Amino acid sequence: MKIDGQLYRSIWLDDDGSTVVVIDQTRLPHKFGTRKLRTVEEAAHAISTMVVRGAPLIGATAAYGVALALAEDPSNANLENAIMLLAGTRPTAANLRWALEDLGRRLRPLAVEERVAVAYRRAAEICDEDVAINRAIGENGLVLVEEAAESKDGTVNVLTHCNAGWLATVDWGTALAPLYMAYDKGIPVHVWVDETRPRNQGAALTAWELARHGVPHTVIVDNAGGHLMQCGMVDLCITGTDRTTARGDVCNKIGTYLKALAASDNDVPFYVALPHPSIDWSLADGAETPIEQRDEDEVLTITGRDESGQETKVALTPAGSRAANYAFDVTPARLVTALITDRGVCDASEKGLLTLFPDRAAEAAAS
Amino acid sequence: MKIDGQLYRSIWLDDDGSTVVVIDQTRLPHKFGTRKLRTVEEAAHAISTMVVRGAPLIGATAAYGVALALAEDPSNANLENAIMLLAGTRPTAANLRWALEDLGRRLRPLAVEERVAVAYRRAAEICDEDVAINRAIGENGLVLVEEAAESKDGTVNVLTHCNAGWLATVDWGTALAPLYMAYDKGIPVHVWVDETRPRNQGAALTAWELARHGVPHTVIVDNAGGHLMQCGMVDLCITGTDRTTARGDVCNKIGTYLKALAASDNDVPFYVALPHPSIDWSLADGAETPIEQRDEDEVLTITGRDESGQETKVALTPAGSRAANYAFDVTPARLVTALITDRGVCDASEKGLLTLFPDRAAEAAAS
Repeated sequence: MKIDGQLYRSIWLDDDGSTVVVIDQTRLPHKFGTRKLRTVEEAAHAISTMVVRGAPLIGATAAYGVALALAEDPSNANLENAIMLLAGTRPTAANLRWALEDLGRRLRPLAVEERVAVAYRRAAEICDEDVAINRAIGENGLVLVEEAAESKDGTVNVLTHCNAGWLATVDWGTALAPLYMAYDKGIPVHVWVDETRPRNQGAALTAWELARHGVPHTVIVDNAGGHLMQCGMVDLCITGTDRTTARGDVCNKIGTYLKALAASDNDVPFYVALPHPSIDWSLADGAETPIEQRDEDEVLTITGRDESGQETKVALTPAGSRAANYAFDVTPARLVTALITDRGVCDASEKGLLTLFPDRAAEAAAS
Repeated sequence: MKIDGQLYRSIWLDDDGSTVVVIDQTRLPHKFGTRKLRTVEEAAHAISTMVVRGAPLIGATAAYGVALALAEDPSNANLENAIMLLAGTRPTAANLRWALEDLGRRLRPLAVEERVAVAYRRAAEICDEDVAINRAIGENGLVLVEEAAESKDGTVNVLTHCNAGWLATVDWGTALAPLYMAYDKGIPVHVWVDETRPRNQGAALTAWELARHGVPHTVIVDNAGGHLMQCGMVDLCITGTDRTTARGDVCNKIGTYLKALAASDNDVPFYVALPHPSIDWSLADGAETPIEQRDEDEVLTITGRDESGQETKVALTPAGSRAANYAFDVTPARLVTALITDRGVCDASEKGLLTLFPDRAAEAAAS
């Protein structure tokens, strides 16, 4: 996607062919800057501190993290250490485990001297595959936005939660990909952007992305979406997901479930956009998804730009009050109108997913 | 209620017998301070800028505002001007209209020279009545908390939204009154405090109130309550309301509806505590309640304590992104388990309310 006319991805390899460069998402929207990752520890730290975030980008960064580790020491022990270190950074995103399993499976049989080159090549492939996947999600989701546009006069109002735009992926985004394509085709779209406390990925990242691309949008507090739906001001919802179970339960940023409930109560379609590596075929019941608990400081404080333009962290609660910080929740499949995947759109159900992934259907039949 | 051992109400008359003193709620939880209201304009400004807020306290402040206006000029014209000015401050709270109608009805027939004393006396009565009402709500709600405590081992976990504590009223609070009483009786209670963006009345006021009184509590983002309910971590919800319709629809702080949906989806009782002056008998359908839209700046920025302890306002969104700021939403009666009123607990329905308010039943039968 473009930032002020210049093409960007959210992660790329530096000119030296080994250093990984990412956009530092903890500084947005106040400052656009990049961060260089030179070691697996720096890659792991970038994931755990959310310099990079979003399930697909976490997967891509972890793949490069393995390459960085092997560049230092390609031994079996170091490969396993790197995979373990990276796997422990964020527990919920399915793509993280997917990318690490993919690299481990390819690298373990190789001679140590071959590993570095293969790891870098596979990490680059994962990035390219992610871009292709998201373009396909965008095209599949675009049809739904076009249908919504045809069924009404005027602007299609779309509500989204958190950031599932190009910053959450390598390029295009998942939930936002159909909206960028709709906008580029001249379909009048307007996006209600949930600010998405506690880390405000909506207010900080989604609003920033949409603004850079010129897509009309309005920021709202996470409390507002229900009222908007009651008033007929939302035509459809689209969110991303960090992990989708084999039966279509969706684990996404905390608060997604509340919006899905409101959508269901007001007959607003609730779509979830997902790349196939975020499907966890080993899990049926979303309630079993491990839910990350993050530092209470993310709730007790917030960072913004003060009057002088400086980034400043301020405390929001009385000294001594404590907070709990669950990062994700699970939206049961019954509340999801459809899943928008890179293979097509399907019902949020085991049957629906298997129509798009016949290889899995064959496996399920055999087991 | 007590602040560090000293008894306080949220509004009182200064020693001069004419100046009204309120706690400045825009400075909490960072600074505890009071504000003197000497004119009706200052009273109206205190309401519209949310120096005072909470439906019952808005009503009490408006009553004193009329007294302040008449102290300056007790003429008919000034009485009507004052009522008009105060009525325009906040559109949603039913208590505001109720208090102004009450004062208007009593004052209009009086000779101008009698008006000031009667207005001050009636404003003081409204304050005392509010305290008695809230004590009754507390006692009626306490029974429900006791029942919850009896049906489980261990702590009763209660989720509340916004601030419906003593700061929202003259004393005790509505939703929090039963919790203070339960705590004082030794029932183990723990309160999940929704931070309640955009103005953070939960993180700023409810957490502060509960901390001052020693009630165990944990602050959460507004997104988290659904997940907590899915995980069985909430035994009951209690919120306040700014306006309740004759059939039991409840208009309260934006986001209340989302929590009521989650409670319903997880079989968690959802109680709404209300003083009878917040019932709007003229309205059946909550969807007709006027919903206040406030300045977008409340969404785009937030104020907290910086590292040096100074209150600092910081911007949260990219420059140029706009926000919408709807202050309330409507929770349909079907999602409300019961209404906790000063007259008792009833079903959230026209029939339920009429069992507690037989005078209204008689009126309804006659009409």
